[in-house]
Amino acid sequence: MITGMWRGVAVGAGAILLVGCATARMDDQSAEEARLLDISREWSRAAGAGNVDAVMRYWADDAVVMMAGLPTFTGKDAIRRYVTESFDMPGFAISWEPLEAHVSASGDMAYIVERSRVTLPDAQGQPVVHQFRAVSIWRRDAGQDWRNVVDISNAPPGPAEAH
Amino acid sequence: MITGMWRGVAVGAGAILLVGCATARMDDQSAEEARLLDISREWSRAAGAGNVDAVMRYWADDAVVMMAGLPTFTGKDAIRRYVTESFDMPGFAISWEPLEAHVSASGDMAYIVERSRVTLPDAQGQPVVHQFRAVSIWRRDAGQDWRNVVDISNAPPGPAEAH
Repeated sequence: MITGMWRGVAVGAGAILLVGCATARMDDQSAEEARLLDISREWSRAAGAGNVDAVMRYWADDAVVMMAGLPTFTGKDAIRRYVTESFDMPGFAISWEPLEAHVSASGDMAYIVERSRVTLPDAQGQPVVHQFRAVSIWRRDAGQDWRNVVDISNAPPGPAEAH
Repeated sequence: MITGMWRGVAVGAGAILLVGCATARMDDQSAEEARLLDISREWSRAAGAGNVDAVMRYWADDAVVMMAGLPTFTGKDAIRRYVTESFDMPGFAISWEPLEAHVSASGDMAYIVERSRVTLPDAQGQPVVHQFRAVSIWRRDAGQDWRNVVDISNAPPGPAEAH
């Protein structure tokens, strides 16, 4: 009788924990995906404003950036130099729009598919807009918010647009 | 007394479940990362053998492939056409090597950073090897093995190598 009751309590407690866990995770995943889209848009606005410090906050210390046509930048020091040099270029502008975000059930890994636009002056100094497909991978360590760990982009086929 | 005992059992059961869970996940993550590296190498060998059916098994139905210089291929039908046309090109070859794999704590999302090599004939028919940086994102649905959901690559700066 006592044994039966104990078993009932143990199974009951386990079931409540597991169901509670699974429900919380489903809600968390949708909420985190929406939040990540907001984070991506907020990051794009910081990049549009040309604020190096604000832009750097979104990367993890060990992040790797592989932009189309540029060398691989590994770690925040290398990434900061790349961001600073880009923002210092006359006529440079960058912005992006996230298309979709996916978060793991455990809420520690995510990725976003994006479309980005980089404006650069051509040889005559006229602004040319280059379109890119981009994927960013995000990590959330315990006690921290989402940080970008991998950023990779390439140009779809077709010419850049003069503007 | 009975209430106190119940509470003890419930807390004990919960603690055992949580600790059991966390330990299993840490082991799973390392094991799954090693297994994903193997899956990536196995996939590269299937691509090297030019076996379309074998290669297609690694993609999820809703996968998106964004290879440098090529249009976006969405879904297995579009990806199969791209793979078939590539394998049919005289002198075409592709292979890759995974550099690192990362798996989420929940084991449902992962990514691999890779280096890939595509051999294509130049205008004179001589093979030219193009190097690419690549990132693949993987999903594991309940009851299934890992499937690639996003594949994106770009060329680092520098010329392709004639061979």
